[in-house]
Formats: sequence, structure tokens, C-alpha cells
Amino acid sequence: MLHKEPSGEKQNTLIRYFNSAPIKKVYGMTLSYSSSNEAVFDLPYNPNFDHALDAIHGGVVLTLLDNAGWFTVAQFYDVWISTADLHAQFLEPVAQTHLQGVGHVTRVGKRLAHATMDIKTPEGKLVARGSGTFAVSSLQLPPFKGR
Amino acid sequence: MLHKEPSGEKQNTLIRYFNSAPIKKVYGMTLSYSSSNEAVFDLPYNPNFDHALDAIHGGVVLTLLDNAGWFTVAQFYDVWISTADLHAQFLEPVAQTHLQGVGHVTRVGKRLAHATMDIKTPEGKLVARGSGTFAVSSLQLPPFKGR
Amino acid sequence: MLHKEPSGEKQNTLIRYFNSAPIKKVYGMTLSYSSSNEAVFDLPYNPNFDHALDAIHGGVVLTLLDNAGWFTVAQFYDVWISTADLHAQFLEPVAQTHLQGVGHVTRVGKRLAHATMDIKTPEGKLVARGSGTFAVSSLQLPPFKGR
Amino acid sequence: MLHKEPSGEKQNTLIRYFNSAPIKKVYGMTLSYSSSNEAVFDLPYNPNFDHALDAIHGGVVLTLLDNAGWFTVAQFYDVWISTADLHAQFLEPVAQTHLQGVGHVTRVGKRLAHATMDIKTPEGKLVARGSGTFAVSSLQLPPFKGR
Repeated sequence: MLHKEPSGEKQNTLIRYFNSAPIKKVYGMTLSYSSSNEAVFDLPYNPNFDHALDAIHGGVVLTLLDNAGWFTVAQFYDVWISTADLHAQFLEPVAQTHLQGVGHVTRVGKRLAHATMDIKTPEGKLVARGSGTFAVSSLQLPPFKGR
Repeated sequence: MLHKEPSGEKQNTLIRYFNSAPIKKVYGMTLSYSSSNEAVFDLPYNPNFDHALDAIHGGVVLTLLDNAGWFTVAQFYDVWISTADLHAQFLEPVAQTHLQGVGHVTRVGKRLAHATMDIKTPEGKLVARGSGTFAVSSLQLPPFKGR
Repeated sequence: MLHKEPSGEKQNTLIRYFNSAPIKKVYGMTLSYSSSNEAVFDLPYNPNFDHALDAIHGGVVLTLLDNAGWFTVAQFYDVWISTADLHAQFLEPVAQTHLQGVGHVTRVGKRLAHATMDIKTPEGKLVARGSGTFAVSSLQLPPFKGR
Repeated sequence: MLHKEPSGEKQNTLIRYFNSAPIKKVYGMTLSYSSSNEAVFDLPYNPNFDHALDAIHGGVVLTLLDNAGWFTVAQFYDVWISTADLHAQFLEPVAQTHLQGVGHVTRVGKRLAHATMDIKTPEGKLVARGSGTFAVSSLQLPPFKGR
């Protein structure tokens, strides 16, 4: 249950988990890790996720924030973690653009982990900023089953 | 820019807007209004939005929270409103279930509107609770263009 | 560590704890419990907590929100709990008025507890609304030592 | 109503405002600005603000977060701003220690301003992290009246 250091091996396992997730396919997101161990989510513009006025729905931004925080702190644990609290500030409306979400570790502890997350456009415009609190469970992550 | 009372006519316009949104189709959500003027979102279980361990992704819950708050407070305005802040508490993990999100008005003002939102299963289990702050713009809502 | 039902005895112990807290004296707050087991904090107007423009400082409202949530969920545990996340929406500015904060349980679990909190004036104006997430520790509450 | 650049003159006015606030005296906080225009609040340990178990009350941390964010973004406006949303993550319990709160601008706009805030001990331990959303009013700040 104690937290570990991130490693390339752990990151590869998490990327395989994410790639097997149905939600990855419907959104068309990809996960990678930066050299400073931040989870990086790239979402090419997908018009299926526009709202009625042809801009990108807030739920897309929220999904990226949740993912960026979760996959950043998950590197530190061998057990399942669950999002407990998520707070988002929406800073700019966005339409017809690629979005990138990046997570930053605030603290990893025995019971709780905390991260902040930023969503930007390729031009570097900060679209949303969030913070997440993640609860550490006692449930061992199952071995990756493939899909 | 001043806020108005909800009306069946305004609710029908908002439902038409929502029904024309691409995100409605990809999720398979429906919007209705309760007799007490709460926006009600129903999302039948859609396995496309599962995460890697076959439970429903947190982004789905966040999208429902955002929608339930936005469409509840939007009834009070003739102008565009935008989600400014959204806070979510995740209370229960959920798998393979219909979800329903309902919004409750806290306050509607000239510059900001506030709501709380609950997500439940059909059995009445409270899955998540959120609060949203919405900024009132000076942008008149365009006439519904159909789609 | 498992949660218990509230009781008058537990409420009296929590009131004694609160009454021995230095912060109770400097603010002049009182704690009671409603018949539906909500923690109720009353704060008579105290000009020492005004900000520079002679209205009540936001920190006062935040302190009441934290207290109302904490003492509502603390009834359910024999161990120490700590505030993990607190989100507040400020709805109305307030000056020279008594304030009352009330907590409402959302969920009490083995690891986390959740509550919502409202701050009102005596006229019933809703001043602020908040939500809190509280982490359940393994630290037994020490016997009340008096002061 | 449009936002301006911070200046030493504006910072001095804000410090004079803060120094005249009753809450400054009861807490014993001081405000300064860093060379990168961050509001910095220093609070020497004050046992009056302990809770019943002799650690520092969460309301103290919340008050510092609110102040650090407000006085950081206030530099950019000639009008009154009000805290609209505040989210706090409590990371470490603290007892008998000086606390320092620092604000960082996220975005300053015509209607809303956003900041993040950190609270640390003199040893650099991160005690709490928060984010604030501030609403820009049309109310001109009154000339400083002194006190």
C-alpha cells in the first residue's frame, strides 16, 4: 500500500491499461509520460464531443483533468486509487482544437494523493486548471489482462 | 441579461438545443425537466465509457454533473452562461448501471449563478455530488438553428 | 474505526471539546446540535473579524463552513477525522450580522466522510454554501481533558 | 473595470488597506509582496487559533488561502473584487508553527480572476494548496481612509 517511485516499467503498464479502456477509443485520447513523470493526455479535436453551439463540451475538459491527475499519481502505487474530489476552473472557451492535459503531483501519502492538472491548447493557451484528491485503496491492481 | 423565471417554453428550447448537440449522441443521454424545474439527465449504461477495469469512467460522472447544473441554471437567462467552477465529490464506484443527474438551483444573480448537482443510480444510491458556479455572459443565445 | 450512530452523549462530548478550543473563545462561536443531528454554529457579529471595508472577512465564513462540516461528521466516529478538501461558494457579501452555519451529512464511510454546509443570516439569507471531504484516521480521540 | 499591471504604488495601497483591517490585528498577520508580485502573508504562531487538540485550526489555513489569493489578484484592478469560489486541499496537520501563504495568478479577466495559493511552514513543508475564483465588481475602491 505504500507508495513507490515512478518508473518506466510502471508507466508502460499504466499506458497499456489506458489503451485497453473503452473510453480511450471513443474519445481518441493518447497517454504518454513526460521526462519529469507527468501524465500527458493528448486529445485531437473530435467534433463528436462538441456542445450545441459547436464548442468543446466542458465534460471533455473535466475528463482530461481527471485522467491527467489520476495517471500522474497512480505511478506511485501498486493498488487501485479512486478520484475522491475534483475541482476545476474553466478559464477559456475552446472550439475546434487539440487539447493537452498534464498532471503535477502535489503529495503522495498512505491514504490520500493530491495533484494539480492543466489543460492547454497547442498554442499554449491555458484552458482549465484543476486539482484532484485521490483515495488509496487496499485493492491490489489486477495483472494486466490485455484487450 | 437579467434572469427570468423558468417556463415550459424555455425548457423546450433548451431540450432542443441539447438534442442537437453532438455530445448528446455519442453519450446517449437525454434531458428532461422535473415538475420543480430541475434539469434531469438520464444516461443508460454505455460500455464505451468504461475505464480499463470495466467500471464507469469518472469523466462520465463529471459530464453529467456539468450538464445537470448548466441546464438547471440556464433556464433563468436569455444569454449564454459558461461553467466557471465545478467541484465534484465521488461517493461510490459504479459499474454497468444507468445514471441519473439532477441539478438544484442555489442562487441566480446578475453576474453568477450557482447550483448543486447529484448523480444517482436507479436504486437511489448517491454516486456523486457536485456544485457549480456559472458566469453570465452578455452574449445573446442565438436562435435555435436545428440540426 | 467503523462509524457509529450519533448520540446525545457523543454530541455533548464534542461540544465540550469545542468549548475547550482556543479558537472558540477568540471568535465567540457556540456549537449546538439540531434535532436532526446537524452541527449548528452560531457566531454573533464580532467586529474584530471585519476586513478593511467593514464587511465580514471571508475567512470567518470559511471557518464556520469547516466547523459545521467537521462537527457534523465527527459524530459518526470514535477516531480523529481531518478535513481533506473544502470547497466554498460565496453567495452574498455580509456586514454586521450574526451568522449561523449548519452541516448536513452526505455520506460516512470507512475511509472518507462527506458533508455539505450552509451559512445563513438570521433573516435566512444564504451567504455561502460549501462541501467538505474528511479523512478518517486511525488515531483514537483522546479522553476529554477539560480546560 | 479593465485590469492593470501590478505596481509598487498599488501594492502599498493594498498593504495599507490590509493593515487597517480589524482581522489583521486579531490574527497578527502581515502582508508583503514578493519581487514577482505575489501576495505573501506571514502568520506567526498564535495559540488563540488552536483547535481543541492543540493544533492550528483549519479556519486559519483557509483565511490565509483566501487572503493570499485575493491580495494577489487585487493588484490588477481598481475596483472591488469578491471571492466567488475557494477550494482547499489540506495536506499536513500543523501545530505551533509560523505559516506563510503565497498567491499565484492564474488568469485575470474582465469578469473573473483566478489564482492558486500555497501555505507552507518555515521549513518549506506544504501544508495546504488552494485555488480561488474572484468576481470583478463595478464598485470603485474607495480612497483609503486610514485607521
